[in-house]
Amino acid sequence: MRRMGRYSILLEAPAVVTGCAAVVGQKEGEGPLGRCFDEVLKDSKAGAETWEQAESMFLNKAILLAAQKAAVKPEDLDLIFSGDLLNQCIGSTFGLREFNTPFVGLFGACSTMALSLALASVAVASGAANTVGAATSSHFCSAERQFRLPLEYGGVRPPTSQWTVTGSGAAIVASGGAGPKVTAVHFGRMVDLQIKDANNMGAAMAPSACDTLKSWFDDTATKPSDYDLILTGDLGDVGRALLKQLMQAEGFTLSDQLYNDCGSMIFDVRTQDVGVGGSGCGCSGSVLCGSILPQISAGTYKRVLFCATGALMSTTSSQQGESIPGICHLVELMA
Amino acid sequence: MRRMGRYSILLEAPAVVTGCAAVVGQKEGEGPLGRCFDEVLKDSKAGAETWEQAESMFLNKAILLAAQKAAVKPEDLDLIFSGDLLNQCIGSTFGLREFNTPFVGLFGACSTMALSLALASVAVASGAANTVGAATSSHFCSAERQFRLPLEYGGVRPPTSQWTVTGSGAAIVASGGAGPKVTAVHFGRMVDLQIKDANNMGAAMAPSACDTLKSWFDDTATKPSDYDLILTGDLGDVGRALLKQLMQAEGFTLSDQLYNDCGSMIFDVRTQDVGVGGSGCGCSGSVLCGSILPQISAGTYKRVLFCATGALMSTTSSQQGESIPGICHLVELMA
Repeated sequence: MRRMGRYSILLEAPAVVTGCAAVVGQKEGEGPLGRCFDEVLKDSKAGAETWEQAESMFLNKAILLAAQKAAVKPEDLDLIFSGDLLNQCIGSTFGLREFNTPFVGLFGACSTMALSLALASVAVASGAANTVGAATSSHFCSAERQFRLPLEYGGVRPPTSQWTVTGSGAAIVASGGAGPKVTAVHFGRMVDLQIKDANNMGAAMAPSACDTLKSWFDDTATKPSDYDLILTGDLGDVGRALLKQLMQAEGFTLSDQLYNDCGSMIFDVRTQDVGVGGSGCGCSGSVLCGSILPQISAGTYKRVLFCATGALMSTTSSQQGESIPGICHLVELMA
Repeated sequence: MRRMGRYSILLEAPAVVTGCAAVVGQKEGEGPLGRCFDEVLKDSKAGAETWEQAESMFLNKAILLAAQKAAVKPEDLDLIFSGDLLNQCIGSTFGLREFNTPFVGLFGACSTMALSLALASVAVASGAANTVGAATSSHFCSAERQFRLPLEYGGVRPPTSQWTVTGSGAAIVASGGAGPKVTAVHFGRMVDLQIKDANNMGAAMAPSACDTLKSWFDDTATKPSDYDLILTGDLGDVGRALLKQLMQAEGFTLSDQLYNDCGSMIFDVRTQDVGVGGSGCGCSGSVLCGSILPQISAGTYKRVLFCATGALMSTTSSQQGESIPGICHLVELMA
């Protein structure tokens, strides 16, 4: 492994995604990517008693399916990196507890799929581990209860709000084997332009995506057209439009042919009543693991930048008047 | 880097702790280790308006002091690993925001100092980064408000309860230079013996410390007497006694000469009204960075096992009747 430029890290021995899976809820299953997901659970409680336990079940199922595809048992993984939006990351803790594997808990808000995949890839490429899991989850009902209002209240959502995805994405990363390769990673910096509106996460996160993409292009002397797909998540339609403007001002054109956002892709914003798109760790997690990684395996994409964004806030920080720092972690994927 | 046995990771090129610092509150400053800490803030709000912002200030100061000792600027760090107990890790987010460095947010509850130091060391030893920060924090008042009862309520604490440390520990890790060496790490597994009493964290976490220590000794074919110091944190007096029993049953004697616990060390449990000892991420963070690492530098200790323990629960999981999984991450330190 060696550093490229100021912030990017080249994996000279690439890590290989040998298995991946996405398990989502019914609404996600009815969206444009519905057929990509490995499992669509019509029962959003997944047979559990609470929304939080249900979120853990989604994560648990995603890891099991990903491990199955990678032909490993979850208990044979050397390490699992995972995190979620719930207080103290209980989605991950209780979803992974039964596997009895070493566990690193992460907090990256909605950027967690890129964060977990980047760290898993570094662990594998460095020889610290041979086979590693990377996962994340979110659940509309557990997120609404924790961050916003009880579902029963039926609060009206502002037009810039996004809809938390019910779902989980999981990937198994190994030092060899067949599958998409993680060739480089870039851990993001916090960018805070003093956005305080917790119902406009796209605006809070777009500047961090711009910061990470710009420094990636600087570090690697590449440009957007060197990639088949640049994928952010989860900026939604508002944040996506903002990012295009911000990048244009930096001299980089993100055309609709090569740029998309997981939050804009997972739902049909015209018909599914989701505000400006999807959000939550499970959004970019399930889009990456359900749709993009399999398309890299199939040869549709040869070189992809996966740039997951997170809003680093809590209800407490918002109630205390703090702004919302954004962060964007990047993973380069190649066929 | 290479794996030793099933779970342990040898850093063939050790990472070096080139600077470390601990910043604590007044009560911690009045404890047995009071003179070890770099800074004791008599104002537990650290000049901030809220307890949460104060916690961020402790973390910010610890990173600044550690960086100063390592002769680097915080903004020149390639990466900072940090986490805390607050919902969505806002202690770390707002404590580190101004440094403008790549940031990996962690959740390991009270095990976070070992988790951040282990990941920072892997990042440095692998070539992924040259100079990396590892930090954590906790604050009695922000933790009480979030996890238990408002301070104003004046609730009586059960006899097995621990006192959350107000403080932060930070370390700078580099690929070369002078200082204690991180020679190996071991990421822990969750161990859950169905303890549900959130006022008896020592009992919830001791089994995970036993699990990690046992598998470390198995992996490395070493025994307790091969070390000058085995340091857990933060089991407190109850958990420490339990761990000694559990280890004895596994055939390993943890004598008082070589074994201690950060939660038992930071306060005088007889006079400071802290229940069975200290807890919180900042407990093992400040004991390691304020007392132990400097003593390794000074030659007092030659080979230390730092085994920080965490209780992976939230108020939601406890209210829903869940038990409390423990986790213990281990870092081997050598002079």
